[in-house]
Amino acid sequence: MTIALDVEAPHLLKSKRLSLYTQDEVIVLMRTDCPVCISEGLTSRSRVRLTSVSGREIIATLYQVENDWLTTREAGLSEAAWTKLGVEDGTDISVSHAPTVGSLADIRRRIYGGRLDEPAFQGIIGDITAGRYADIHLATFIATCSALPLDIKEICHLTKAMIDAGERLSWETPMILDKHCVGGLPGNRTTPIVVAIVASLGFTMPKTSSRAITSPAGTADTMETLAPVDLDLKQMRRVVEEQGACIVWGGAVRLSPADDILIRIERALDIDTEGQLIASVLSKKIAAGATHVVIDLPVGPTAKVRSLDKAKSLSKHISAVATQFGLETRSIFTDGSQPVGRGIGPALEAYDVLAVLQNKPNAPQDLKKRAISIAAQALEMAGHVEEGAGQAASEATLLNGRAWEKFQAICEAQGGMRTPPIAPFTRSLLAQSSGKLAAIDNRKLSRLAKLAGAPNQKAAGLVMHIRLGDSVKATEPLLTVHAEAKGALDYAIEYAAANPDILTIEE
Amino acid sequence: MTIALDVEAPHLLKSKRLSLYTQDEVIVLMRTDCPVCISEGLTSRSRVRLTSVSGREIIATLYQVENDWLTTREAGLSEAAWTKLGVEDGTDISVSHAPTVGSLADIRRRIYGGRLDEPAFQGIIGDITAGRYADIHLATFIATCSALPLDIKEICHLTKAMIDAGERLSWETPMILDKHCVGGLPGNRTTPIVVAIVASLGFTMPKTSSRAITSPAGTADTMETLAPVDLDLKQMRRVVEEQGACIVWGGAVRLSPADDILIRIERALDIDTEGQLIASVLSKKIAAGATHVVIDLPVGPTAKVRSLDKAKSLSKHISAVATQFGLETRSIFTDGSQPVGRGIGPALEAYDVLAVLQNKPNAPQDLKKRAISIAAQALEMAGHVEEGAGQAASEATLLNGRAWEKFQAICEAQGGMRTPPIAPFTRSLLAQSSGKLAAIDNRKLSRLAKLAGAPNQKAAGLVMHIRLGDSVKATEPLLTVHAEAKGALDYAIEYAAANPDILTIEE
Repeated sequence: MTIALDVEAPHLLKSKRLSLYTQDEVIVLMRTDCPVCISEGLTSRSRVRLTSVSGREIIATLYQVENDWLTTREAGLSEAAWTKLGVEDGTDISVSHAPTVGSLADIRRRIYGGRLDEPAFQGIIGDITAGRYADIHLATFIATCSALPLDIKEICHLTKAMIDAGERLSWETPMILDKHCVGGLPGNRTTPIVVAIVASLGFTMPKTSSRAITSPAGTADTMETLAPVDLDLKQMRRVVEEQGACIVWGGAVRLSPADDILIRIERALDIDTEGQLIASVLSKKIAAGATHVVIDLPVGPTAKVRSLDKAKSLSKHISAVATQFGLETRSIFTDGSQPVGRGIGPALEAYDVLAVLQNKPNAPQDLKKRAISIAAQALEMAGHVEEGAGQAASEATLLNGRAWEKFQAICEAQGGMRTPPIAPFTRSLLAQSSGKLAAIDNRKLSRLAKLAGAPNQKAAGLVMHIRLGDSVKATEPLLTVHAEAKGALDYAIEYAAANPDILTIEE
Repeated sequence: MTIALDVEAPHLLKSKRLSLYTQDEVIVLMRTDCPVCISEGLTSRSRVRLTSVSGREIIATLYQVENDWLTTREAGLSEAAWTKLGVEDGTDISVSHAPTVGSLADIRRRIYGGRLDEPAFQGIIGDITAGRYADIHLATFIATCSALPLDIKEICHLTKAMIDAGERLSWETPMILDKHCVGGLPGNRTTPIVVAIVASLGFTMPKTSSRAITSPAGTADTMETLAPVDLDLKQMRRVVEEQGACIVWGGAVRLSPADDILIRIERALDIDTEGQLIASVLSKKIAAGATHVVIDLPVGPTAKVRSLDKAKSLSKHISAVATQFGLETRSIFTDGSQPVGRGIGPALEAYDVLAVLQNKPNAPQDLKKRAISIAAQALEMAGHVEEGAGQAASEATLLNGRAWEKFQAICEAQGGMRTPPIAPFTRSLLAQSSGKLAAIDNRKLSRLAKLAGAPNQKAAGLVMHIRLGDSVKATEPLLTVHAEAKGALDYAIEYAAANPDILTIEE
């Protein structure tokens, strides 16, 4: 049933920048009565392919208008569409139906219970990276890989596909250290400290970090309040060659770029399941060229990992996948029952990091101890010291100022050190009665910080005044909410009032 | 940790209708520098609650603009937002952060493998019906109920929640007949014929139908080319009181309204799994007051139900759920190996229906036989005739013209009979070689009809010229593509060229 084709010349419209902000969502507006919509039979929410004169292609969601924003010869682009298509105002854009996205058939197959092989994951991740998935497709992919969990084979395929879809770094040094914390614990900002310690002893740690998934701050969010983090590959390489280390945002260097697309939806859905977690973590590490990675697994009743059994199982799965890629991992299980440090939120956590690096007497000791433990594991894996001697070696770099010196040098190399912002609106929550702090709901605490504006508003978040087991008297402050906007502060306070079990005080 | 609140007076903006078409997506535009965005800390893609002066509330997705579409005191509404909020231009709208959607926690729970109970489904369906879910949440719910299939208990809970979320009809007649076809077979448009037959014999059949989910036409789409189908409850009741029957769109009468919201996303994802299928079908029937339902299950290698075993299992599950609600069902398994009738697409299927009802000699015999079989089951279940005598009774109403008379009366009662539209663009696909039609890929055939514009473009679709086993000579037409737009025609033809296995001719 082959037939001759006489498909017409492409339909052209003139590009128009709308200054319409939709985050990463690629949207094009056209008039209902525009000739392209009529002749192509396009309707609102059609997926369309836009091609620039230079041949760059994007897939966009069409919304139609019946007003004077556009002429019938214009296509209006959201900022995300504008940036990705890379055109100028008034240039020709060719418009057609979006091609069928072949890999969606694999997602449907998995929904109906089928397992996916390597080519399927390559197709899915390739289409995601190329921007061919609408948000509902991304959400479906995520949910599908969760409700019927990915098996180890599938996680390996997914990891490989995610690595292949982006850049892959290689370094002159044969040993490349890295660390990762499996989130879920507010304020656990050890990375900048660990990187500074390890690099100050001459090891290489080209650290790429993600922004927050479901937490009020990711390492990249916190680090951004101290120095630029959106370095490209070339800039990152220069910083690492100069300083032996960096702390940059992984998305900007296009290591496992699909991860950043998926994370946006995972954040909106507030889900982050094992298979995707492992693929996300390991694809970044492997693409960054890491050879030895320490994994910090906080365990606690309201942390992401709820029990030691689950931590051990996750650790085993991480190591099973890592081995397939020649990567050595070492997991440490840490206390996940309460936040680390005092601050929760990008800038507030940065101030904790600075206090530790500057060896201040009031520095949060829990954050300091954790960072030392992780650095110790890295140094022991790297053979810098004997097993058991890593702690002392790490702590020495904080006491003698070499870690702080190294951190400043890294910040300068990344584009200049900054002072983190301070929120204009604050309000403290006071204890209603005297007693001991018996329990903390870390998930609700995170939500409170997010309602205050974190991580998008860098200065927003919480400062904790007490820790588990501490005694408090009635009317003493338990924590202080920081916000950049009055509305956000009110909204957070309203949430705190409706959820008295965020902190449990027992007499 | 209770605290005093001094949340400020609500933030007001003036409503502005944008004439922005986004289908059902509820979107509000505000300027980045509008005081509400600043004080509330709102960003692009924030979910916000809009409240009208009369107290009506909707949840919308915020997109921000930095242009002259709006002043800093205005909130621009998409058509969907405008209709749902029911305001006039320039009236006050109060804006706040959308409240946390509690039921999303249950969806996350299910993603992590948990089963849901009745209150959970009530919460989810209530939030969906109230418009509190963004599209990614809907997609996640659908995927979550698919990858880990719903068990019978969960399907009952979901069905009940879907019934409870909408209107529920009751009728004076104790016996209310209904029928449903589990889709997947193009052109299977028996409903209008069955309704006409059954009603012409004095039985009550208040038929509500859905629009297409993944097919090129639903019964409501086809019926709409013959008469108005978006009747409200009062109008529907009047038609049924007058004529004993109706054929209306279920969405307009708010029977199981969540179903229509879910169907929009299922259609975009092209998935429709067992649990949701059963809840969707039965919630509509029960809410419509049905007591006896015939279920048509077409079985074929590319139909929705692929084997007799699966059909039996689905039939068992349907009946298990139906029994919980006191509903009697009878399933019949029909040939699902090829399309029914000649037309595929709303108007083209309507012409087939008319030919059968008008008892024309060229009427498609397969469609006629199927409709008679289903009507026969209904009449036998209803006790109108003995088991086995339903066929003859049904056929008689077609031969003596009473069914056609009844159908016209129903159309007139629904608002007036119409002539289905005819497509301006057609093109035939010709056989490349002589031989017999050995196989049809119904899924690809449906996709071809959809690419031609069905079901949104009513006249679009396909007309089949041969059936399985028919002989054809080279250059003879196999099927004709109908389209309302030249672009859609080209696109369909391009797809046909790339998929020669839609129809398989063997020598």
